[in-house]
Amino acid sequence: MAAGADPRASTLRKVILPFTIDARDGRARTGRLETPHGTVRTPAFMPVGTLGAVKGVSPSALREVGTSIQLCNLYHLAVRPGIDVVEALGGLHAFTGWSGPILTDSGGFQVFSLARLAAVDDDGVSFRNHVDGDPMRLTPESVVSFQERIGADIGMVLDECPPWPAERGRVAVAVRRTTAWAERSREAWSGEATALFGIVQGGIFDDLRLAAVRDLSALDLAGYAIGGVSVGEPESERRRVVEVTAPALPEAKPRYLMGVGTPADIAHAVVQGVDLFDCVLPSRNGRHGVLWERDGELRIKNARYRDDPTPLLCGVSRAFLHHLFRCGEVTAGVLATLHNLSFYLDFMRDLGEAIASGSLVDWLAACPVARLDRGPPG
Amino acid sequence: MAAGADPRASTLRKVILPFTIDARDGRARTGRLETPHGTVRTPAFMPVGTLGAVKGVSPSALREVGTSIQLCNLYHLAVRPGIDVVEALGGLHAFTGWSGPILTDSGGFQVFSLARLAAVDDDGVSFRNHVDGDPMRLTPESVVSFQERIGADIGMVLDECPPWPAERGRVAVAVRRTTAWAERSREAWSGEATALFGIVQGGIFDDLRLAAVRDLSALDLAGYAIGGVSVGEPESERRRVVEVTAPALPEAKPRYLMGVGTPADIAHAVVQGVDLFDCVLPSRNGRHGVLWERDGELRIKNARYRDDPTPLLCGVSRAFLHHLFRCGEVTAGVLATLHNLSFYLDFMRDLGEAIASGSLVDWLAACPVARLDRGPPG
Repeated sequence: MAAGADPRASTLRKVILPFTIDARDGRARTGRLETPHGTVRTPAFMPVGTLGAVKGVSPSALREVGTSIQLCNLYHLAVRPGIDVVEALGGLHAFTGWSGPILTDSGGFQVFSLARLAAVDDDGVSFRNHVDGDPMRLTPESVVSFQERIGADIGMVLDECPPWPAERGRVAVAVRRTTAWAERSREAWSGEATALFGIVQGGIFDDLRLAAVRDLSALDLAGYAIGGVSVGEPESERRRVVEVTAPALPEAKPRYLMGVGTPADIAHAVVQGVDLFDCVLPSRNGRHGVLWERDGELRIKNARYRDDPTPLLCGVSRAFLHHLFRCGEVTAGVLATLHNLSFYLDFMRDLGEAIASGSLVDWLAACPVARLDRGPPG
Repeated sequence: MAAGADPRASTLRKVILPFTIDARDGRARTGRLETPHGTVRTPAFMPVGTLGAVKGVSPSALREVGTSIQLCNLYHLAVRPGIDVVEALGGLHAFTGWSGPILTDSGGFQVFSLARLAAVDDDGVSFRNHVDGDPMRLTPESVVSFQERIGADIGMVLDECPPWPAERGRVAVAVRRTTAWAERSREAWSGEATALFGIVQGGIFDDLRLAAVRDLSALDLAGYAIGGVSVGEPESERRRVVEVTAPALPEAKPRYLMGVGTPADIAHAVVQGVDLFDCVLPSRNGRHGVLWERDGELRIKNARYRDDPTPLLCGVSRAFLHHLFRCGEVTAGVLATLHNLSFYLDFMRDLGEAIASGSLVDWLAACPVARLDRGPPG
């Protein structure tokens, strides 16, 4: 269903997201995505607030570290507290206290990775949720409706994300279904609050990825994501998928690599023309004492940091964060998360500036944490 | 040993804390305490950062909620990471990232409540610490030296805090020892970085309290604390101790009620002329979902808050905090702590303004959470 062939296209495209590319450096781009709740400078990293808040981080701290857009998860919110509750409270922004842009993941990935007894058919997916085991069902239409009712700035279409490894036949079915669901999502879309992004599946099969890109591009959605990565595949496979898929996506639309990754993974994808990212690594690794800095990763619990006065991005010294981890204080995880989020968001800003000044290759070469060949964390 | 009789008094008093009382309302006062790291408006509440940080709260969040002075604990810092480490890193302010005033508790209370095998003699106290059981010893002189070496703005003298209930004879010995230790603390004091506060012990025995006040006042210390409260005694006993002791303390010096308490406890003590407070309740109760508001306490986990859009002081709605507690998110405790600290610090500011305008009695009568007869949390 190409947009040009659809007589409803002009009325359907009510919520558009103006996306301006300000500069290019090779395939990499830097630009601005205008959402109903504010402008997102790209390339951008979206901290993950699965249940509405990044673990250990208040809305004001999330602003302070430089967040422009937060990711929340429709599956988790549908399980608890429920879409009706969020809607009745005025939507996701009023509910969570985060007044900036919000993207909601559709729940496709979570249904297949977290929920029990997931049974997918051409109409949708039935499962028992991971909290109380209650039966639930999501369809492309209900997912769009949920995201619109809670006022997400960007909603993702429901997709089928096969586990890894998956055989070609299994992946081909998932691609066909995900594309069909994207068409139904677009038809169900009221266009009143939420912009819709499509999701490219296809596993590690380049031709399936490219077929998905072709079919989804014809739907003229507000943006496109590369899904089904970071599901266990080797790094080399993941990078090849990005190299094949990203440049093929519509040039004028924002491109989003879902669930990726380390600074080096992100740098690689930015070079391939990706604009948006989300990942739990800054918060999850932070809680385990793994910090990112320009020179690489460090394990702050190591004894070598006991006397190290070097300041971190969370307002305390390495020695103090080491002390708090050694004491088992919850503050340790909070501060490490704030440091890592600050690092990621500064890193994205620096990538954008390097693109704008046409110096991306040199900048990356001089930034150890962005290199693929760096050693293990110190 | 009265200050006037001591030929060393003029040279010993190098670090003084100018304390200006700006207004009085009955016995209550509001004023300014000038420390090397900034001015503290009184009455003031000191959030408790036992190990150097309030649980779950970054230094910048601590500032954002309105903290002017933080309390840290010498006993805990001496156990981990050790005084040598903190000193080598440039002192407590550089170590923790908190650049405002810091008061350190001496460790007397912790030695008797937390440590094992505490054996007190007239010279000091020996014990095994609560973390690794290593033997340690604190004396009045070592405690002063430790506090000066880590650069506390205000240090507390080592005191003996008897458990509750304690017989009169036991308490009398502790009072005598604590007073003798205060004299030795003053003599050991270099006067170069840290102002010293004395601690009034005496349990629930009014005459012992008043004798301690008399003897400690003669030492002309920078301020005076009421210790040995909030150790298990009934509320009525605690309040009588405050009513007897606070008005007897030197009028021109700051008065500090240690480890107290609820907003109603604090209001009661402010009426009796107390200027400084610390307590773990805002953070500890916050982590358990008990919040303070002007109308009283509330248990945010109660089902009644599921749909309640009322904003809290931490930037989110009651409904969202309820949701995060129900999901078991660590963010729940963080946000509840931020709310409670904001409430406490706003409450202190409001008390000061009511004193300044001569309307303290009326203000307290109109503030349900400050009243003694309020019901259980909702």
